[in-house]
Amino acid sequence: MDPKLRRMASSFLALLLLLEGVMFSSSSPPSWPLDKVFQYIDLHQDEFVQTLKEWVAVKSDSLQPVPRFRKELFLMMAMATDKLQRLGAEVDSVDLGSQQLPGGQSLPIPPIILAHLGNDPKKPTVCFYGHLDVQSAHQDDGWLTDPYTLMEVDGKLYGRGATDNKGPVLAWINAVSTFRALEQDLPVNIKFILEGMEEAGSIALEELIRKEKDRFFSSVDYIVISDNLWLSKRKPALTYGTRGNSYFLVKVKCRDQDFHSGTFGGILNEPVADLVALLGSLVDSSGHILIPGIYDQVAPLTEEEKEMYEAIDLDLEQYRSSSQVEKFLFDTKEEILMHLWRYPSLSIHGIEGAFDKPGTKTVIPGWVTGKFSIRLVPHMNVSMVEKQVKQHLEDVFSKRNSSNQMAISMVLGVQPWIANTNDTQYLAAKRAIRTVFGTEPDMIQDGSSIPIAKLFQDIIQKSVMMLPLGAVDDGEHSQNEKINRWNYIEGSKLFAAFFLEMAKLH
Amino acid sequence: MDPKLRRMASSFLALLLLLEGVMFSSSSPPSWPLDKVFQYIDLHQDEFVQTLKEWVAVKSDSLQPVPRFRKELFLMMAMATDKLQRLGAEVDSVDLGSQQLPGGQSLPIPPIILAHLGNDPKKPTVCFYGHLDVQSAHQDDGWLTDPYTLMEVDGKLYGRGATDNKGPVLAWINAVSTFRALEQDLPVNIKFILEGMEEAGSIALEELIRKEKDRFFSSVDYIVISDNLWLSKRKPALTYGTRGNSYFLVKVKCRDQDFHSGTFGGILNEPVADLVALLGSLVDSSGHILIPGIYDQVAPLTEEEKEMYEAIDLDLEQYRSSSQVEKFLFDTKEEILMHLWRYPSLSIHGIEGAFDKPGTKTVIPGWVTGKFSIRLVPHMNVSMVEKQVKQHLEDVFSKRNSSNQMAISMVLGVQPWIANTNDTQYLAAKRAIRTVFGTEPDMIQDGSSIPIAKLFQDIIQKSVMMLPLGAVDDGEHSQNEKINRWNYIEGSKLFAAFFLEMAKLH
Repeated sequence: MDPKLRRMASSFLALLLLLEGVMFSSSSPPSWPLDKVFQYIDLHQDEFVQTLKEWVAVKSDSLQPVPRFRKELFLMMAMATDKLQRLGAEVDSVDLGSQQLPGGQSLPIPPIILAHLGNDPKKPTVCFYGHLDVQSAHQDDGWLTDPYTLMEVDGKLYGRGATDNKGPVLAWINAVSTFRALEQDLPVNIKFILEGMEEAGSIALEELIRKEKDRFFSSVDYIVISDNLWLSKRKPALTYGTRGNSYFLVKVKCRDQDFHSGTFGGILNEPVADLVALLGSLVDSSGHILIPGIYDQVAPLTEEEKEMYEAIDLDLEQYRSSSQVEKFLFDTKEEILMHLWRYPSLSIHGIEGAFDKPGTKTVIPGWVTGKFSIRLVPHMNVSMVEKQVKQHLEDVFSKRNSSNQMAISMVLGVQPWIANTNDTQYLAAKRAIRTVFGTEPDMIQDGSSIPIAKLFQDIIQKSVMMLPLGAVDDGEHSQNEKINRWNYIEGSKLFAAFFLEMAKLH
Repeated sequence: MDPKLRRMASSFLALLLLLEGVMFSSSSPPSWPLDKVFQYIDLHQDEFVQTLKEWVAVKSDSLQPVPRFRKELFLMMAMATDKLQRLGAEVDSVDLGSQQLPGGQSLPIPPIILAHLGNDPKKPTVCFYGHLDVQSAHQDDGWLTDPYTLMEVDGKLYGRGATDNKGPVLAWINAVSTFRALEQDLPVNIKFILEGMEEAGSIALEELIRKEKDRFFSSVDYIVISDNLWLSKRKPALTYGTRGNSYFLVKVKCRDQDFHSGTFGGILNEPVADLVALLGSLVDSSGHILIPGIYDQVAPLTEEEKEMYEAIDLDLEQYRSSSQVEKFLFDTKEEILMHLWRYPSLSIHGIEGAFDKPGTKTVIPGWVTGKFSIRLVPHMNVSMVEKQVKQHLEDVFSKRNSSNQMAISMVLGVQPWIANTNDTQYLAAKRAIRTVFGTEPDMIQDGSSIPIAKLFQDIIQKSVMMLPLGAVDDGEHSQNEKINRWNYIEGSKLFAAFFLEMAKLH
């Protein structure tokens, strides 16, 4: 069906249902004022899509540090400011100065938007974090449509930033604007922090959060991030944790220069052989980490957790084949997810200083640096892990009786982030999901560290929740990124329902 | 003392000694015609140095594929042709066509000189291999003098190509010319093969040797190469072997693309972990190769060999400190030299496909290729080693029960070269060394493969000997390359003495 016709039919159907007082997206009809809110969102969905189209059209690429894209970023932040001001928000567009580029030039950093709507001390204050910059996109890279022209095909809205993260930011705005349009009092105080440099490493964000901790953030009770995806195409999810990470460099050195393997092979403790032995002592072929004590602090698996894993919607065979992996280390959905989220893992990333090019150089590298990292989970502690890793490597190295020098350093240490899933906003989000989607959410974690969640938790020290809207196949960062119209519109409803549940539970 | 004065004094001293019938360079006076030959060389040493100076002045750099240097190479080969013709040699300057460069251009390849002097079926025919091209040199690289202006300082003749290989080539020519000048019959038939592309990989040489096998080389009995160095500053050496090499690539693959260690860490058989286990199974920390059967074919150490090692002049402490190595795997001269020359060694060169840059990328490489090689010694066999390595790696890999794919290939297989040190030309060279230097030579090998020795042995299937003239500190390929005047002049005598000994022993 022609998308335009389909949309018209869909709006018409919503209107009919509205007249009959029946909502079509939840199993039991929501009560006032939610019914009105949902009706409004359904009826105005094309406007919401149109706004997303306008936002996607802005090439707010933060990865290419050139004036052309920087201008688009400033335009994007100005459009968002205008949008929020029209909602009645007080908006502070914080100037962040300039970014020094390696080449010596400098570029202005797009402002971070701090906005708020409502200041009722009886209501909880929910702060929404989002970003309006996007990954680079060129139609030549394999896009079927122009990445900066939002195109609807079979209910999928294709465009750069559609799901990451312009769609979810607008869904939150849609929810707020619906209450405004219906002249309903906002159930919660709303704050926004919107940045334009997320894809480029959130330049200047941490500093601003620290600066605003006792001002803008002093009244914030909850922080919501909607910058990840569901685990499924159809079942919503709530994200309550991310693994931490500790990244190690281990250098073994004989001398600064390389050797020729003909001239020196046979009489040296070769640094690569030492390093290979060190790296080979870290993890066995079943993925089990061999560093003594490393599992001691890992939280024991509870019954409640087990049930959460069992309830998760994951098509294992599809996941495997889309990952292009012949076979995983584990056979069940539960084991796989637990080993991605709630157990530590150790990956060896590579070796610096050795021969890494194509071809056949007969070199004995004079020094080499091995790189590996351990993904951390509750209640592992970065400092303890650092101690255990160093002790272990020193033991292995000393047994080799090598004349080389070894130096170990932990160059990155990020604690895992875990939220209390019985916290008010998680309970509210679950109820909102039940209302909008008629199902329990997948309770998921992320195997990677998501610095932003950890950042808010560490600095603001308030509850952080990740409430994604996009489906697993949205293709964030890749070609043909999309958000489904269904996810975008139901997501807008979800946020609205969440506001009401928060008001009830707080 | 001013070098010029010193040379004059030295020539004057030689003249005095000549008048008294006493040679100053050997312990007992050599008998006729050697006494005359040595006297002549001593008296004409400044002429010989002058010729070397003229040859060093030609920038016959074969590593820079540009017309300017190629012209110098052609000039160099023409000068050598002229020099040999003046000695009465028949010279064939073989046109080798053009070299295609990666950029699409082509450059003419300098000719290879095939020359011969004498064709007496009663005499042995000795063919001398040498090269007249040099490594690149720029005064800015750290040369104390202009690299293309031969400069004498304290008896050292500094200049690019002085020791590698223009000096030794001229020493051979000096020896021949001395017999000519003295109107002495040449004791042996002499052949020359002189190339101009050795430093660039001896382009076109192998093809020419094969082509000339049954023509130019059909009458050759012995091949002498003088393109390496002594192990000592003062004690001459004879080189009778080089190790071979077998170079392996072992690839472990999960998929073509890399993974993110947050998103996939914990559920994969990671290719790097598999590879590290494979590489870690190859050699222990004492340098012992762990591949079953690998030592089975290594020639047992004989008493005669042991004695040769004991007699070698090596200042271990100086060797260690000049190598900038804290400690070798072995403590004695004999063990160190044996592990460089007569025992196999295994070196791991590096890994392709992993993260090899500075920084901290959290990648799980989708595939990696490990690179290692085994230096081979008599009587190891390349095919047998290939089989043993593959079998071993397959065993280790299969025990890991990994779902990844492994592929092993041997991309280079060079047999070791070893000469019979009781062969006529070795005996003759030893006697000549005794006569000229009053000492037994160090009987040495080279831990690297020297393709040229192996090439002649394999194709011509005649005895090959490496008879170096330069001292260990000559700095071939590096800045401030030099040959000592003493080595150059005594080396010329050595070659002359060698001709006479060959005639006696043949």
